[in-house]
Amino acid sequence: MNTKKLLMLGAGLALLPVIGFAQETTEVAEEIAEAAPSFDEIGPYIMTTLLFLVGGFLVFWMAAGFTMLEAGLVRSKNVTTQLTKNIALFSIAGIMYWLVGFNLMYPGEFNGYVGGFFNITVLEAVGLGADEASLDYASVASDFFFQLMFVAATASIVSGALAERIKLWPFLAFVVVLTGFMYPISGSWQWGGGWLSEMGFSDFAGSTIVHSVGGWAALAGAIVLGPRLGKYKDGRVNPMPGSNLALATLGTFILWLGWFGFNGGSQLAAGTVGDITDVGRIFANTNMAASAGAVTALILTQILYKKVDLTMVLNGTLAGLVAITAEPLYPSLFGALWIGAVGGAIVVFAVPLLDKMKIDDVVGAIPVHLFAGIWGTIAVVFYNEGTSLMTQLTGIVAYGVFTFVVSFIVWYIFKMTIGIRVSEESELTGLDLSELGMEAYPEFSKS
Amino acid sequence: MNTKKLLMLGAGLALLPVIGFAQETTEVAEEIAEAAPSFDEIGPYIMTTLLFLVGGFLVFWMAAGFTMLEAGLVRSKNVTTQLTKNIALFSIAGIMYWLVGFNLMYPGEFNGYVGGFFNITVLEAVGLGADEASLDYASVASDFFFQLMFVAATASIVSGALAERIKLWPFLAFVVVLTGFMYPISGSWQWGGGWLSEMGFSDFAGSTIVHSVGGWAALAGAIVLGPRLGKYKDGRVNPMPGSNLALATLGTFILWLGWFGFNGGSQLAAGTVGDITDVGRIFANTNMAASAGAVTALILTQILYKKVDLTMVLNGTLAGLVAITAEPLYPSLFGALWIGAVGGAIVVFAVPLLDKMKIDDVVGAIPVHLFAGIWGTIAVVFYNEGTSLMTQLTGIVAYGVFTFVVSFIVWYIFKMTIGIRVSEESELTGLDLSELGMEAYPEFSKS
Amino acid sequence: MNTKKLLMLGAGLALLPVIGFAQETTEVAEEIAEAAPSFDEIGPYIMTTLLFLVGGFLVFWMAAGFTMLEAGLVRSKNVTTQLTKNIALFSIAGIMYWLVGFNLMYPGEFNGYVGGFFNITVLEAVGLGADEASLDYASVASDFFFQLMFVAATASIVSGALAERIKLWPFLAFVVVLTGFMYPISGSWQWGGGWLSEMGFSDFAGSTIVHSVGGWAALAGAIVLGPRLGKYKDGRVNPMPGSNLALATLGTFILWLGWFGFNGGSQLAAGTVGDITDVGRIFANTNMAASAGAVTALILTQILYKKVDLTMVLNGTLAGLVAITAEPLYPSLFGALWIGAVGGAIVVFAVPLLDKMKIDDVVGAIPVHLFAGIWGTIAVVFYNEGTSLMTQLTGIVAYGVFTFVVSFIVWYIFKMTIGIRVSEESELTGLDLSELGMEAYPEFSKS
Repeated sequence: MNTKKLLMLGAGLALLPVIGFAQETTEVAEEIAEAAPSFDEIGPYIMTTLLFLVGGFLVFWMAAGFTMLEAGLVRSKNVTTQLTKNIALFSIAGIMYWLVGFNLMYPGEFNGYVGGFFNITVLEAVGLGADEASLDYASVASDFFFQLMFVAATASIVSGALAERIKLWPFLAFVVVLTGFMYPISGSWQWGGGWLSEMGFSDFAGSTIVHSVGGWAALAGAIVLGPRLGKYKDGRVNPMPGSNLALATLGTFILWLGWFGFNGGSQLAAGTVGDITDVGRIFANTNMAASAGAVTALILTQILYKKVDLTMVLNGTLAGLVAITAEPLYPSLFGALWIGAVGGAIVVFAVPLLDKMKIDDVVGAIPVHLFAGIWGTIAVVFYNEGTSLMTQLTGIVAYGVFTFVVSFIVWYIFKMTIGIRVSEESELTGLDLSELGMEAYPEFSKS
Repeated sequence: MNTKKLLMLGAGLALLPVIGFAQETTEVAEEIAEAAPSFDEIGPYIMTTLLFLVGGFLVFWMAAGFTMLEAGLVRSKNVTTQLTKNIALFSIAGIMYWLVGFNLMYPGEFNGYVGGFFNITVLEAVGLGADEASLDYASVASDFFFQLMFVAATASIVSGALAERIKLWPFLAFVVVLTGFMYPISGSWQWGGGWLSEMGFSDFAGSTIVHSVGGWAALAGAIVLGPRLGKYKDGRVNPMPGSNLALATLGTFILWLGWFGFNGGSQLAAGTVGDITDVGRIFANTNMAASAGAVTALILTQILYKKVDLTMVLNGTLAGLVAITAEPLYPSLFGALWIGAVGGAIVVFAVPLLDKMKIDDVVGAIPVHLFAGIWGTIAVVFYNEGTSLMTQLTGIVAYGVFTFVVSFIVWYIFKMTIGIRVSEESELTGLDLSELGMEAYPEFSKS
Repeated sequence: MNTKKLLMLGAGLALLPVIGFAQETTEVAEEIAEAAPSFDEIGPYIMTTLLFLVGGFLVFWMAAGFTMLEAGLVRSKNVTTQLTKNIALFSIAGIMYWLVGFNLMYPGEFNGYVGGFFNITVLEAVGLGADEASLDYASVASDFFFQLMFVAATASIVSGALAERIKLWPFLAFVVVLTGFMYPISGSWQWGGGWLSEMGFSDFAGSTIVHSVGGWAALAGAIVLGPRLGKYKDGRVNPMPGSNLALATLGTFILWLGWFGFNGGSQLAAGTVGDITDVGRIFANTNMAASAGAVTALILTQILYKKVDLTMVLNGTLAGLVAITAEPLYPSLFGALWIGAVGGAIVVFAVPLLDKMKIDDVVGAIPVHLFAGIWGTIAVVFYNEGTSLMTQLTGIVAYGVFTFVVSFIVWYIFKMTIGIRVSEESELTGLDLSELGMEAYPEFSKS
C-alpha cells in the first residue's frame, strides 16, 4: 500500500532525540534533509493526521458539553450523580473502544496494526518512517483518537435521557455493551465498509450512526426504566425544571464548538485544496444549521407559548447540529439553514409529544438526537445526488431496529437481574445523597 | 487571478469519495499523485485556510465567554434572559451576516462567489480544484466562517451593557440591524478596502472596528434605555453585585482563549515563515497584554480601595486584550505589557466615571470595549511606523460618530414604537420570571 | 540555505488580495516570492510552530481548568479569593517568565534573540525571512508562548493546596519567586540542557519538572501554613465539602483537554511523518491514562467506601494524566492504561494518608501532582529503554530537595515577616468577605 521509496529516512529519524533542542537537531536535520521525502509526499498525511488530532480534541470537548448540559438540566439533588456518570462513561468508552470496539468497527483496516487476542488496538511504532506510514491517509493513533470520541458521544446521549432515577452501575454496564459492541458492530455496517456502505447509504458524520443510535438506546432505556416519580400524575405533566440553566447553556456552547470537529474532522482528509476547502464548507454549514435551529425554536416557542423557552432554544440548537451531521458538506448555506431549522422545529413539537406518551426523557435527548437524527439522514437526499431516499430509509430502519431491540433486551435483562432503578425513597431524596453520599451544591440546597 | 496550470487535478479530485476509505483512496491517491500540484503551490492556501478554521472556532468560543461573563455579572433573577439573549444574538448574527453582511463588508471580494439577489454569501463548490482556488489566500468558506465570528462579538458587547432591563425582542431587532448592516457597512471602510484603509488607518484585529463599535452601540443603548431601577438613588450609586463570579471568571478565561484566534487569525496568512512567525508574535503579545491588564487592575484596586476587586481584575484583563487588538504584531513584549496595562488602568478609572454620569453599564462593557478600544487604536502609532495619530483619530471618530448616531436613532425609534424597556414590575421581579417564566437557578433563589 | 527554484510563484502571490494591508504586503510579497524556499524546507518549521501555538492555547486553557477545579472544591465563602488568586497567578507568571524565567531556563537558546539586561525575552523581527529562522525548530515566540503556559501550571498547583486560609499578596509574592526563579532554574537542569539532561534523566512533558515541582512547593507551603481551622479536631478529620462539584468537574474536563496540548506539544516537532505520528500516539496514550485513572478511582472508592466518590474520580483522572506525562510516547495503550490506573490508585490511598499526617491539602493537589508525578517519572523506565531507574530517582530527588527546601525557606521567611495566614476571624467569616469584600454567590449564601 505504501510507496516504498523512502527507506533511507529511517536512519535519520532513529537519531532524532525525543525532545529535540536546536543544537542537537541541527545536525540531524541536515542528515534528514538529504533523504527526506518531499512535502508533496508527506504533506497530506501530516495535514490529515493534524485534522484528526484537532478534530478529536474538539469532539473530546463535547464530553464536557454533554456533562454540563445534563448537570444543568437535572434537579440539584441529582447533579453529582449526573457528573459522575458522564466522566465515568467517557472513561469506560475509551477503554472498551481500545479493547474491542475500534477493530470490531473497522475490520481489516490498518493491516499490520491490529492486535491478535481480543482485537486490542495497537498503534504504530514510535518515530514511524515515512515508508511505513499510510501516506494516503493518516496515523492510526490519530484516527483511533478521533473515532473513539464518537463512541463516547453516543453513550453521553443515553446518560441524559435516563437521568434522575437510574442506578449508577447498571448504567455503566450498559455503557460497556454499547461502546464495546453495539456501536462498533452497527457502525461497521457503514463506516467499516459494510453492507450499508455498499448499498450507497450516506451518513457523513453520523446523524444516524452516532446520534440516532444514542437516541434509540435511550428510548429503549426510558421505556424499560419508566418515568420519574410524579412526572406524570393525574393526567398532567409535572414540570421538573433544571437546576442550573447557565451550566446547560455552557454545555450547549461547548457542544456547538465540539461539533466543528465532529463534522469537519469527518472529511477524513485535509491535505489537498479540495479537502481543506470542504472542511471550511462543513464548518460554515454546521454553524448555520445550529443558528437556524436556535432561531426556529426561539420563534416557535414565542408563537406557541407566548414566551421564549431557553431549554427549547438550547435543544433547538443541538437539533440543528444533529440534523446537518448526516450531510454537512453538499448543502449550500441556505440548505444548512432550512435543514437546521426543521431540526429545531422537530424539537419544539416532539418534546411535548414524548410527554404525552409518558416517555420521560429528562434532557430532551430523544427529540434532539433520535428525531432530528432521522430527519438529517433523510435530508441528505436533497443535496447529495448520489443518494436515494429508499437507501437512506433502509439505513435508518436498520440502525433503529438493531439498536432498539438489542438495547431493550439488555436493559430488560439488567432490570430483571441486577435492577436498574433506585428505590422510591432514594429517588425522592435524590441520588446524590442516597447513592453517593455527596451533594453537588452542599451550601445552596433549598430549605 | 489563479495560475491555470493545474487543470489536470480536477479529474482526480472529482473522483475523491467524500469519506475516503483506504481501499478507495489508494487508487485515487495514485491518480492524483500524477497530476497533483506541489505543496509549494498549495501549502500556503491550506495553512491559511486552517488558520481561519482554528482561529474561527476560537473566536466562536468567545460567544460562550461573553455569555458566561454576562450571566455571572447579572443578578440571578435575570440570568435566563441573559443566556437567551446571547445564544439568540449569536444565531441571528450568523444568519444576517450570511444574508447581507459578508458581501456588504467585502464588496467585490471573492469574485465569482458572490451571490445575486440580496448579496447572499455563496461558498465554493464541493471538492474545489486547485486551479479554481485563490491559492494566494484561503477558502471563501473558511474566511466567511472567521469573519462571521467577529460580527457576533460586536453584538455580544451590546448585550452585556443593557442587561437586566431591556426587552428581549427589541434587543434582538437591534442585533439584526447591527450585524446585518451597521457593522458590515462601517467595517467595509477599512477591511473591505474602503476609504479609511486607503487613508492608512490601521486596526489589525478590530479594537475600533469590532470592540469600540460594540461599545458605541452599547453606549447609545444605555443612554436611551436609562439605568436600572434603584441603581442611582439619592445621589448614591447602589451596587448590584453579580450573582456568580465563578461563571464571570470562566467567561473571562474563555474570552482570553478565544482572543488568540481573534488576533492571531487576523494575520490572514499562515503559509510562510514570516506569517506563521508573526502569528506566534501575536499570540505572545496578546497573552502579555491580558496579563498586564489583570495585574494593573489588581494593584490599582488594592491601592485605591485597599481591597482587590475581582470584577475589576476580570475587566482589566479584557481591557488589556482589547487594547492590544489594534496592533498585536509590531509591539515588543514590553510594548504589549504597557499597552495592556494602560487598558487595565482605564477600566479601573472609567467604571466609576460612568456611574457618575449615571450611565448604567451592567458588566462594564463600555470601559472595556469602547475606552480601551480607543486607547488601543491610538497606541498603534507607537509601534507601527506606517501609521499617523491623525489618521488613527480620524478612524476612531468616524466609527464613533457613525455607530453612535445610527445606534441612537435605531434605539430611539424602537423606544418610541415597540418599546425597549420592561415594566417596572417586571424589572423588580426579574426578567426571568416576568418575561420568560423560567428561572436559571430555581432551587437556589434567595428568601 | 534556500533553494531558489520557485520563481514563478511570485506572480500569483503578488496578486494577493489580503484584506487590510494589501497595498503594503504586495511589495513585500514580491520580494519574498523571488527567494521563496520550498515547503520541504519550511514545512517542518511551520508545522512545529503551529504545534506550539495550538499546544500552547490548549495548555493556556488549563489555567481555566485549575481555576474551576479549585473554585468548585473550596467552600462558597472562599470562592472569590480562589478565582482572584488564579487569574492573578497566571498573569504574574506570564510577566515573570518574560522578565527572567524563559532565558534563565533556556540559557544560550535562540542565540541572537536573547535580550541584554535582566535577560528579558525578545522575539524575532516581524515578517521574519526564511533565511533568518531556525528552520529545524520553530519560531521563538511560539516556543516562548508554549513554555510560558507550563510555568503557570506549576503555580496553579500550589494555589489549590493552600486555599481557604492563605493571604492573597504573600501567595502572589511566592508566585513571583516560583515562576521567575525556582521553576526556571530547576527546569534548566533538564529542559535547558543541564546536568540532569546530560545524565540521561527523562521527563517528557514534566511529571517531575512541572507537576511534582508544583506539588513540592505546595507541600512546603501546607506545612508552614498549617491546616484550616477545625479541619483536624479531636483526632478526627472534619470533611469540608466543596461548594460546587459541577464546576470541579468542568475544571477536570478542561484540564483533560488542555493536557493533549501539554503532552502532545512536548513532542516539540510536528513536521515529519515520525513526529506527527508520535503526537498522535501521545494524544491516544494521554487519553487512555486519564480514563484508566478515572475508572480505577471509581472502582476503588466503590470497594473501599461502598460509595463512588466523585472528587476522588476527578482527582484520579488528573493523577492518571500526571502519571503519563513523564513518558506519553513510548508506552503502548495498555502501558498507558496501567500507568494511569496506578496514578488513580495512588490518589485514593494518598488523600486519607495526608489527612492522617494533618497536612491539609484542600483540593488534593499533592497526591495528584506530587505523588502521581513521582510515580510517572519512575514508570518511564518500563517503556523508554534509554532510561535507568537510578537516574530517574536522581532527578526526582534533585527536584524534590531543591524545590521543597527553597519553598520552605521562602514560605518561612514570608511567615516571619509579612505573615501568610489570615486571622482566625477572617478564616471563619471566609476570605471573600473579610479580605476582598465580595462574595462569589451573594444571592445563594447559606442561612
